[in-house]
Amino acid sequence: MRVSVTGAAGFLGRHIARRFRAEGWNVVGIDLEPFDEDGIESRVGDFTDEANAIELLEHSDVVAHVGAIGDVYLAGRKPSLAAKVNVVGTSNIALAAERHGSRVVYASTWEVYGSPEYEPIDEAHPTRPDHPYNITKLAGESLLLAACKLNGISAVALRLGTAYGPGLRQNSVFRIFIDRARDGMPITIQGDGSQARQFTHASDIARAFVLAAGSSESGIALNIVDPRLTTIKELAELVTQRIPTDLTFGDPRPGDVPSSYVSAESARTTLGWTPEIDFVDGLTEIIETS
Amino acid sequence: MRVSVTGAAGFLGRHIARRFRAEGWNVVGIDLEPFDEDGIESRVGDFTDEANAIELLEHSDVVAHVGAIGDVYLAGRKPSLAAKVNVVGTSNIALAAERHGSRVVYASTWEVYGSPEYEPIDEAHPTRPDHPYNITKLAGESLLLAACKLNGISAVALRLGTAYGPGLRQNSVFRIFIDRARDGMPITIQGDGSQARQFTHASDIARAFVLAAGSSESGIALNIVDPRLTTIKELAELVTQRIPTDLTFGDPRPGDVPSSYVSAESARTTLGWTPEIDFVDGLTEIIETS
Repeated sequence: MRVSVTGAAGFLGRHIARRFRAEGWNVVGIDLEPFDEDGIESRVGDFTDEANAIELLEHSDVVAHVGAIGDVYLAGRKPSLAAKVNVVGTSNIALAAERHGSRVVYASTWEVYGSPEYEPIDEAHPTRPDHPYNITKLAGESLLLAACKLNGISAVALRLGTAYGPGLRQNSVFRIFIDRARDGMPITIQGDGSQARQFTHASDIARAFVLAAGSSESGIALNIVDPRLTTIKELAELVTQRIPTDLTFGDPRPGDVPSSYVSAESARTTLGWTPEIDFVDGLTEIIETS
Repeated sequence: MRVSVTGAAGFLGRHIARRFRAEGWNVVGIDLEPFDEDGIESRVGDFTDEANAIELLEHSDVVAHVGAIGDVYLAGRKPSLAAKVNVVGTSNIALAAERHGSRVVYASTWEVYGSPEYEPIDEAHPTRPDHPYNITKLAGESLLLAACKLNGISAVALRLGTAYGPGLRQNSVFRIFIDRARDGMPITIQGDGSQARQFTHASDIARAFVLAAGSSESGIALNIVDPRLTTIKELAELVTQRIPTDLTFGDPRPGDVPSSYVSAESARTTLGWTPEIDFVDGLTEIIETS
């Protein structure tokens, strides 16, 4: 079986491509630039172009569609770019999948829900995204799932928790806290640090993609979120326990997504997915290997 | 005061541009092709290009953003085009409005709600769009309203009922029914004809745009929907009473939006808007003038 992973040169795409490879799949990694990864075919292209998307996904049994403007700050600065990549691009992936009969597993996000109306948040919870990142990710998801009903494609959307793990991008809160502590600078928390996140390890997310690729479920979204709630203040303290430095507090970040508790119970019953990496172990690994 | 109307050569854009003109505004009509309309400056351009959008909206106090892939069938056949025009395009309009300090009034749709969870549907009702048309219209709306909070622009979204009036496009249910009856062909209803719509006259919609342009409300969506529910079967019968022909029934249209009852109470209290055109009068006018 052959899987194409879009955004394979990115943090999450790389973890997912490796995992498919480890499970015996033939893996094609698609990105804007060539990249070098053992046992993975690098294919260069741009899925925001419809014809190119169709060409790129030829002979794919499965497409793990991870490529996106996944950097919340970049999406906020360039909302039209986020719309082009995350909405037009995902629509093109759906068209290409229809053409080739490929199944799609889409990287969506827990941030599509907005402020919780009840908790834990399951997949039936209303979606009220309010930032170019989560708005465009939800629109891509909706177009993909609509294509299941309207055009007969097979697809699932995985609404991922905040991903972390080795290889995180430089402007992630993990890397910022660790790098500042290493440089002997104080760690600044935006707001009071009480915002909680369900940090979910890239390796657990990658396993969910493989499980979803092999499942016959279609037309649905599933939360792929670690149950552990960690506050930003707790994350900062875990870092400073390992690399001592000061903690300071700054202004809240505009448009920051509020805390909420998301349940992955459907993923457990549907895919047999539960997370395996303990958060403190995962964080320690990042500190020790970076 | 100067208003720019995007999509001014289209059915709804033309009604809206004329109404602003009648109320004493300086009106610039923007579309892909030049058009000829008394007292309205025609400006040709493509707002799916960010730089072009910024250039097109120079010196606009208000932008009535009506330009879209508004044809549901076309959006279904070309979802990536709908995503480009309705999502990327609206994001560009928001950026241009931020640059020029223009207020935006956006043509959204009642179809963003999906199946009703309670009725009448007010603006707090969850949104669960399931077709490329309503998915992309909602994403455009969400990006615009997010820009109010994140970038300080002034904008409202009007969630319009199914628009009708003189100049409707050829593939609208009104034109199809009237044209077939005139040709002596039977009118075919897709499904059992019990689907109900709140047909809202273009002239009433145009008045809502003028009221919204002059209001200081921002960051909100308002339903602009006529309270009268008309079934497709009733519409067909009203046509055949005036132009006698047979009625037949065919397969339901895939992805057809289910009936629901939408309330415009917020528009009444916020803008002072209530519809003025009686549906039977409006339909009779279309039959008599086309």
